[in-house]
Amino acid sequence: MKLIGVVDTTFARIDMGSAAIEELKGLGTGFKIVRRTVPGIKDLPVAAKKLIEEDKCDIVIALGMPGSKPTDKMCAHEASTGLIRAQLMTNHHIIEVFVHEDEAPSAKELSWLMDRRSREHARNAYDMLFHPEVLVKNAGQGLRQGYEDVGPIKER
Amino acid sequence: MKLIGVVDTTFARIDMGSAAIEELKGLGTGFKIVRRTVPGIKDLPVAAKKLIEEDKCDIVIALGMPGSKPTDKMCAHEASTGLIRAQLMTNHHIIEVFVHEDEAPSAKELSWLMDRRSREHARNAYDMLFHPEVLVKNAGQGLRQGYEDVGPIKER
Amino acid sequence: MKLIGVVDTTFARIDMGSAAIEELKGLGTGFKIVRRTVPGIKDLPVAAKKLIEEDKCDIVIALGMPGSKPTDKMCAHEASTGLIRAQLMTNHHIIEVFVHEDEAPSAKELSWLMDRRSREHARNAYDMLFHPEVLVKNAGQGLRQGYEDVGPIKER
Amino acid sequence: MKLIGVVDTTFARIDMGSAAIEELKGLGTGFKIVRRTVPGIKDLPVAAKKLIEEDKCDIVIALGMPGSKPTDKMCAHEASTGLIRAQLMTNHHIIEVFVHEDEAPSAKELSWLMDRRSREHARNAYDMLFHPEVLVKNAGQGLRQGYEDVGPIKER
Amino acid sequence: MKLIGVVDTTFARIDMGSAAIEELKGLGTGFKIVRRTVPGIKDLPVAAKKLIEEDKCDIVIALGMPGSKPTDKMCAHEASTGLIRAQLMTNHHIIEVFVHEDEAPSAKELSWLMDRRSREHARNAYDMLFHPEVLVKNAGQGLRQGYEDVGPIKER
Repeated sequence: MKLIGVVDTTFARIDMGSAAIEELKGLGTGFKIVRRTVPGIKDLPVAAKKLIEEDKCDIVIALGMPGSKPTDKMCAHEASTGLIRAQLMTNHHIIEVFVHEDEAPSAKELSWLMDRRSREHARNAYDMLFHPEVLVKNAGQGLRQGYEDVGPIKER
Repeated sequence: MKLIGVVDTTFARIDMGSAAIEELKGLGTGFKIVRRTVPGIKDLPVAAKKLIEEDKCDIVIALGMPGSKPTDKMCAHEASTGLIRAQLMTNHHIIEVFVHEDEAPSAKELSWLMDRRSREHARNAYDMLFHPEVLVKNAGQGLRQGYEDVGPIKER
Repeated sequence: MKLIGVVDTTFARIDMGSAAIEELKGLGTGFKIVRRTVPGIKDLPVAAKKLIEEDKCDIVIALGMPGSKPTDKMCAHEASTGLIRAQLMTNHHIIEVFVHEDEAPSAKELSWLMDRRSREHARNAYDMLFHPEVLVKNAGQGLRQGYEDVGPIKER
Repeated sequence: MKLIGVVDTTFARIDMGSAAIEELKGLGTGFKIVRRTVPGIKDLPVAAKKLIEEDKCDIVIALGMPGSKPTDKMCAHEASTGLIRAQLMTNHHIIEVFVHEDEAPSAKELSWLMDRRSREHARNAYDMLFHPEVLVKNAGQGLRQGYEDVGPIKER
Repeated sequence: MKLIGVVDTTFARIDMGSAAIEELKGLGTGFKIVRRTVPGIKDLPVAAKKLIEEDKCDIVIALGMPGSKPTDKMCAHEASTGLIRAQLMTNHHIIEVFVHEDEAPSAKELSWLMDRRSREHARNAYDMLFHPEVLVKNAGQGLRQGYEDVGPIKER
């Protein structure tokens, strides 16, 4: 039985954690989910590390919605740096699912994007844990999470 | 009995530490508070780490007021990066409460914002320690500390 | 028998990992290759570290194609910082092969550049492992990977 | 007997280390001073860490004068990040005393500012070591080192 | 017998490592030199750390020539951050000798600057190892490596 950690924030404007969990549950069996929520994205790194080291999660999905101001962009940078550091300290993958508030032109599209990216990265986490060969098969395929895949370059 | 660390700065223009402590005392019992003050925000990371490792605090609230100049913004970035690193080194949460000097249009509003954000994050720290399920319930609710909550996206 | 790790991404628009592996196989014998693919460049640092620590690779080639938006540039910075940290934590070299999506004026040239830089850095990795004296001989020679070498300054 | 480390640079345009040491000597007794000088600010972090770990200093004052060019600003950022990391690795405070070359309008004022900030932070270091309650008393008082204190916000 | 590590890059446009080594040999005796060359500046941090930990060098000189594009500036930042981290992990000094490609107006001057800064920092490394008191004597003297010294501020 594998353990998948899911941690999101109260700052985000949709419940990204639940979207990821719902998606995970539809993908297969053989795992349990441990859920946490923290105030903001800068609280995610240690929460993810604790899920790995204290709750023994095999992989973690860390979800958040950085705001659109310059200060928020810096927060996202700090959070991402921390998530990478947490991975290096634990030798476990933490899949970062960030949707910047200004990535979508309207609240409705933002909500759609946050939901979809959460779900597509949940699938990535699932594959990394159970079917890493699927990722190798998709190397260089120009995959994106949320908006449409760009696809591989054909003109060679 | 839990221990909550509170560390703030002599640089800030209101006593953020006392605001957080006053709020904490109104939230419940079952904890003691350990207080420290350092010169500036770049001194916060190690002070917070010492509160965790030497004073055995279970969680720390680190409060500061970054100035408005580009150099000050960089200081805030360095301090935030250090606070995240301190958390990863200790597996304990440190709640960062920063109010940028240019977030408010007047000294009076700045003072109000610093007080209110300090108090609302004190509540976050309290909940993370005693009632983490409250945060999960609020996942994706668009919560903010200081100014009004943005709220969740309704149009879906 | 040496082990060379190769890790690339599903985000990139050509299969950089296969290009590096094909090149390596033409360079000599005495090594085996371990391959991994992750979603994006921010997943590379821990994947590279795991190749070193869990799969016992002697050197790793980490390949990716950062996008052209400011957010993508920041991702590249975070990934690079993580790759350097992973090296320092393991005392092993990880050769970063990044091609920024806006380095080439067309998809066709981008594809050419990604292929060529992957191959030339595969050669660097091979030399660092088997013939480090080749690199010393080339010190200060203005070498580039992908586009043409700039060469050493002659006017002295 | 406590030990206070002082490390400065040959790059700076006044002898900041001697200013800090002179000030310290006027503040009290009960401590000895260990002095080092390095070429530039990027050499300060490891020098400060060595003062703590090899020379057993209880606190360190790290002084420097970052230049005014963008590259110099980046150096200051790197040095500050390193000083924070050194503190987190040792659980000891390192008081950073940086005066940016462009903080003052003339060489004379720059010299005054460097001298004064060095002295005022020497006092901070002394208080942190011997009288930490003085800092708590000054929480939120809008203190500055070098130029005049801004003071606390009165309009509340 | 002390050991001095020298590591440079194939990316640079003059052989900075040889310049540093030539200079070192003229400064005195009592040391041996270990030389490495890596592809680019981002490969320097782990190479320097390996020189310290595996080759037992007492100090390392890390030389490189960051390019002039924004991406190159970011590489320099990442490399510098890594070099500082390597120092903190080993408690050994690594003298960074970077000459930005756009620091000089012509290839000829760039070459001169790279040679001279390499040599002057070789002297710094030598002094830090054998005569640290020389650096203390030069504290605050406005020393520069490459271009002329700025000197101390006289107007006080």
